Amino acid sequence: MNMILDKAHLTPPDPYPSRKSSEVCILKRCDPVVYSEYDAACPLTQEQVESYDKNGFLMLPEMFTQEEVALLTEEMERMRRNPMIAKRKETITEPESQSVRSIFSVHQLSPLFSRLATDQRLMNIIRFILGDDLYIHQSRLNYKPGYRGKEFNWHSDFETWHVEDGMPRMRALSASITLTENFEYNGPLMLVPGSHQYYIACVDGTPEDNYKSSLKRQEYGVPDDIALSTLVNEGGIVTATGKPGSVILFDCNTMHGSNSNISPFPRSNAFFVYNAWSNRLETPFSDHQPRPEYIASRQATAPLKAGSLTDPS
Amino acid sequence: MNMILDKAHLTPPDPYPSRKSSEVCILKRCDPVVYSEYDAACPLTQEQVESYDKNGFLMLPEMFTQEEVALLTEEMERMRRNPMIAKRKETITEPESQSVRSIFSVHQLSPLFSRLATDQRLMNIIRFILGDDLYIHQSRLNYKPGYRGKEFNWHSDFETWHVEDGMPRMRALSASITLTENFEYNGPLMLVPGSHQYYIACVDGTPEDNYKSSLKRQEYGVPDDIALSTLVNEGGIVTATGKPGSVILFDCNTMHGSNSNISPFPRSNAFFVYNAWSNRLETPFSDHQPRPEYIASRQATAPLKAGSLTDPS
Repeated sequence: MNMILDKAHLTPPDPYPSRKSSEVCILKRCDPVVYSEYDAACPLTQEQVESYDKNGFLMLPEMFTQEEVALLTEEMERMRRNPMIAKRKETITEPESQSVRSIFSVHQLSPLFSRLATDQRLMNIIRFILGDDLYIHQSRLNYKPGYRGKEFNWHSDFETWHVEDGMPRMRALSASITLTENFEYNGPLMLVPGSHQYYIACVDGTPEDNYKSSLKRQEYGVPDDIALSTLVNEGGIVTATGKPGSVILFDCNTMHGSNSNISPFPRSNAFFVYNAWSNRLETPFSDHQPRPEYIASRQATAPLKAGSLTDPS
Repeated sequence: MNMILDKAHLTPPDPYPSRKSSEVCILKRCDPVVYSEYDAACPLTQEQVESYDKNGFLMLPEMFTQEEVALLTEEMERMRRNPMIAKRKETITEPESQSVRSIFSVHQLSPLFSRLATDQRLMNIIRFILGDDLYIHQSRLNYKPGYRGKEFNWHSDFETWHVEDGMPRMRALSASITLTENFEYNGPLMLVPGSHQYYIACVDGTPEDNYKSSLKRQEYGVPDDIALSTLVNEGGIVTATGKPGSVILFDCNTMHGSNSNISPFPRSNAFFVYNAWSNRLETPFSDHQPRPEYIASRQATAPLKAGSLTDPS
């Protein structure tokens, strides 16, 4: 008995178990959302901090100028057309057309996108929210074409990063920097305010009823309809629309997704996941093998240093 | 030579050819949009008439009261659960779940929906726009579920009604009566203002390149990306959001579509297509066999009479 208590003390139970049961379960978050105390030096207003804390996301319209967006867009197009990049494992192409859909590790493939990721306007805010030094857990450039862009189902990133990558706690966030205009009709990011306060433990394994298998497979690692309705009934849905150069910051555990895009307007963005230095990856909280470095970084040797998008010095 | 001229005179060339060429072609509409002159007796304001004429659609918020919507919703649910209706050919079920997606000919299957279709608030407006007696070319009840509602690609209805059903001219319109709220994020109807002034003659036939076949099949009877961009660059995109009981009227040739719906909120509506009595169907403008009566009616024997949704007398 004493032994067991000791052992439990040495390895506390995972507060965020998932894919271990046949039932979906809604748990309360047991980590802070904002890890710093507000003071006059904070790069956000007090209302912005409170809004991020309450809703789990914050929209920062036009943080980057149209001139900066033009530089980024040009670089994005150059990368899309570069056959050396198209061949890399970090590059995901559309199954039918071979056109580039996403490029992972973009902060390592492009000096300009590296400077975007560490631009001080962005870094100061994120260091304030996470109250720690930072490194990049994942980065990508998403081209999201018009006409036949597909929907992306509801999910919390943290569930995957915890179970498949071994991220211990909720002390990470995503920054999406929009490179084209996000309209209400080109499949913008949708977020569920307040959903970051609940952890949806997802179902595991293979379904017992074979006829349901195709349906169930889709639901592996994503919340079921009832859990999702519970969150939406409480918080509603917010659509992140805005001009190019805007930034959408959202907590690692905020429920989000997007509808399809049949409009002619692409919805491109640069996407960086920042993790607190103290929250670096451990062994996955499952029997998964760790995912590749370009999807979930384990090799960062030092925290990010803030710089400037337009000044390479 | 004389003979040929005479013959051309007797059977004038089809002004709206489609699916007869390997090229998409944009033709100018050669029919009016509003077929009556505005006067004080008109059930619309002059601004509304001008807006419909210019844009090809008109939104009429909350034409029906919430009590009327409650009656319709109740009837809709009763029909959905009725096994006799589920078995009918007019009922379309989801491929995986057998749950009811649409019920065609709803004005013939339900006295309440028949009274909705002929309610004088609706009928007076539509008779004004089409300047003629009316009959119902097609009707349906759309359940459009939440969570995994699929997108519906851009199309003009008239192209199909002309080519496959034999509708001679552009003198028809659709009325969508919303039975749930249309949010920006539950896959609402999207329309391209001004697109009704252009007829997109679509490509015909089987693709020559086999590997493209799945892509091409989707594009059979729908505009290509370039034609769509041309229309959208000129008119933009409008999203039809609104409370239950609202009516969206749109011309038979207005380009429209909808994105997917991953939100929990269904987007149900009753949908009626009114055709001018003088514009009844002929032989299809193609070698298609006429489609079934419940999709394209040929058997109407008398024009609709206006009545009241709530008064069966």
